[in-house]
Amino acid sequence: MHAWAWLDPDAALAQARRLDRGPLLGLLHGLPVGVKDLMDTEDMPTAYGSPLYAGYRPQRDAATVALARAQGAVFPGKTVTTEFAVFHPGPTTNPHNPAHTPGGSSSGSAAAVADRMVPLAFATQTGGSIIRPAAYCGIVGYKPSFNTLPRQGVKALSDHLDTIGSLARTVRDAALLAAAASGFHDLVLEDPQPLVPRVGLCRTWEWDHCEAAQQQALLGAGERLARAGWPVMPLDLPEAFASLAAAQYTVMLRQQYQSLSVERLGHWEALSPNLQDILAQGEAITDAAHWQAIARIAHCKALFRDVMRTVDVLLVPSVTGEAPKGLASTGSPLLNRIWTALHGPALTLPFGRGPQGLPTAVTVAGLEGSDRTFLQAAQAIEAQLGEPYND
Amino acid sequence: MHAWAWLDPDAALAQARRLDRGPLLGLLHGLPVGVKDLMDTEDMPTAYGSPLYAGYRPQRDAATVALARAQGAVFPGKTVTTEFAVFHPGPTTNPHNPAHTPGGSSSGSAAAVADRMVPLAFATQTGGSIIRPAAYCGIVGYKPSFNTLPRQGVKALSDHLDTIGSLARTVRDAALLAAAASGFHDLVLEDPQPLVPRVGLCRTWEWDHCEAAQQQALLGAGERLARAGWPVMPLDLPEAFASLAAAQYTVMLRQQYQSLSVERLGHWEALSPNLQDILAQGEAITDAAHWQAIARIAHCKALFRDVMRTVDVLLVPSVTGEAPKGLASTGSPLLNRIWTALHGPALTLPFGRGPQGLPTAVTVAGLEGSDRTFLQAAQAIEAQLGEPYND
Repeated sequence: MHAWAWLDPDAALAQARRLDRGPLLGLLHGLPVGVKDLMDTEDMPTAYGSPLYAGYRPQRDAATVALARAQGAVFPGKTVTTEFAVFHPGPTTNPHNPAHTPGGSSSGSAAAVADRMVPLAFATQTGGSIIRPAAYCGIVGYKPSFNTLPRQGVKALSDHLDTIGSLARTVRDAALLAAAASGFHDLVLEDPQPLVPRVGLCRTWEWDHCEAAQQQALLGAGERLARAGWPVMPLDLPEAFASLAAAQYTVMLRQQYQSLSVERLGHWEALSPNLQDILAQGEAITDAAHWQAIARIAHCKALFRDVMRTVDVLLVPSVTGEAPKGLASTGSPLLNRIWTALHGPALTLPFGRGPQGLPTAVTVAGLEGSDRTFLQAAQAIEAQLGEPYND
Repeated sequence: MHAWAWLDPDAALAQARRLDRGPLLGLLHGLPVGVKDLMDTEDMPTAYGSPLYAGYRPQRDAATVALARAQGAVFPGKTVTTEFAVFHPGPTTNPHNPAHTPGGSSSGSAAAVADRMVPLAFATQTGGSIIRPAAYCGIVGYKPSFNTLPRQGVKALSDHLDTIGSLARTVRDAALLAAAASGFHDLVLEDPQPLVPRVGLCRTWEWDHCEAAQQQALLGAGERLARAGWPVMPLDLPEAFASLAAAQYTVMLRQQYQSLSVERLGHWEALSPNLQDILAQGEAITDAAHWQAIARIAHCKALFRDVMRTVDVLLVPSVTGEAPKGLASTGSPLLNRIWTALHGPALTLPFGRGPQGLPTAVTVAGLEGSDRTFLQAAQAIEAQLGEPYND
């Protein structure tokens, strides 16, 4: 399924054997971790999904890679990313059906975890690049609060939005990688706690863009929790949030146009037509429109604190529906945009299947900085929704 | 005065001659720009102020360097930064008195501009690294709104705070470099407008830490504007701001500990004792303390919108006083911390001299995203305060 941009099983085995002979290094000792090829690695090439960087050898690891390495992680290789983590797809296919996209931009990381090649992988999200591929591939995707994992050594798209996170098959595993690679060891989870979090069931302003399968997944997950006696209450986002996805898109378009200046100005011909088109859209965003969008996001972030006064977490749609057929697109990040902009934790939980037999999912969303209690709540919800790998 | 970590006048002349033979490239055509050695350059070594990176040759320019280059800038060299832009000083001395620090971390950029080696230089600020050296060296320092200039290719300290800006001898020049290197060409200023902005004279909660010279500079600048008939009103920040500087410091300590993971984990012995000490302080910040500080900053950002309803800009102290004697420290960023955390524009205007004959200054501060009108107001204030180079 072409999950890897670079794979070196022999080097991984040698790393593992070295770790076997030494003392216990930390939280990830001996665990194989897929590294999205947007992140610098000192011992593997890093191409950012672009032919322009083919064979590029960074001098140093990204900070998160160094942190995971120091905690004993083994790195079998680099996972496929879309071109610079924007929209132009790589070759990766969906492990559940090779005719469908695995989602993007963290395509290879999601496919490799879903196919059990590795238990853990790094991912990054600017629009919907953690949550969406996790949903399409039927795994757990965790986008921590903004700036939980440091970005040094990760190719930037949007300084206001880029967020590093983890993909795994359980909430506990996803939390483990985020804890190890951030140094926020409070995020390590124990066995599920007997928590009953207050859950807001939130359709969002994008609900009408969801296919029936996604709508049923959300409503079904809410019913499941309610039947277990949990307090599940319908919750609508304020009207200001109706334009939040558009504000996120405006900021992303403008800032990736800025961040990719080296490539745009010096190597235009080496960029895909997809990327050329999206950079042209970024150029067309006026200065005023950019700052209005930043202000709109700040306004919604402030309102969101009020929204969350009566609930502990929200349950929201993950994506528009099952993974689309074909590899020309990695699907729509529409349902993920507002959660990236709000800077709080978001986590995909697989739940059910759609009419094409592909995974469907729900997303848990929370307040910025609440990740420890958020993850405990997500773990409790996961226990209620059942283990998708026993389907 | 050891402003340069790398200087290649022949290469700069060759660049300039090439530009002379070609078409007009843009806003900076033929202008020499000092590049802080925290920023990657494809044609000059980039050492981040650390022996660990001596001779390091990045493959690509930082995005801001590429943007300036495409607008016709000439780069004579790299300016001295403190070690990784933290506190351990480089060799640079103050152009007004070599026994005094030029401030940091943008030490070389400030000295080079103040000494008229270059009209423009890049600087970065996480605590007070643009505003403070500008004040100590008697030049204009402009810290634009957060994320105005893209950070790709600049060594990261704190993802929540790192801000790229410019140093120059006039507001108009400082705005020009920021416009060119961000792509926000709305920031280009024309001749000063006959504006009379509403000015809030704000001592801040750190006022008692200011020496008499800094206090007199602020009060004197306020009087100057009031005598010209401007609406200048005293303005106190809400009590929540009393702990904002501490919150900024908490976030900075924790995030630079994360961002410098490669160096801390793999090359501890190559770090200065100063840096080792501050990284140990970062390790001691608990997860909860970090997120409480993030929430405190967000709370103050929201309050600041109310503060600014009755005024267009604030006039605030720049630094604790004149540049301290000695080169073992680059002085205190205490007066700059809250303005970095608030993410709005801040700009140093030289104003007067202190008892040691060194420059004093005032800082103009504004609301995030208001940079165009903010710069026009700052330019109008500059015209009222007089041209320090005619002293």
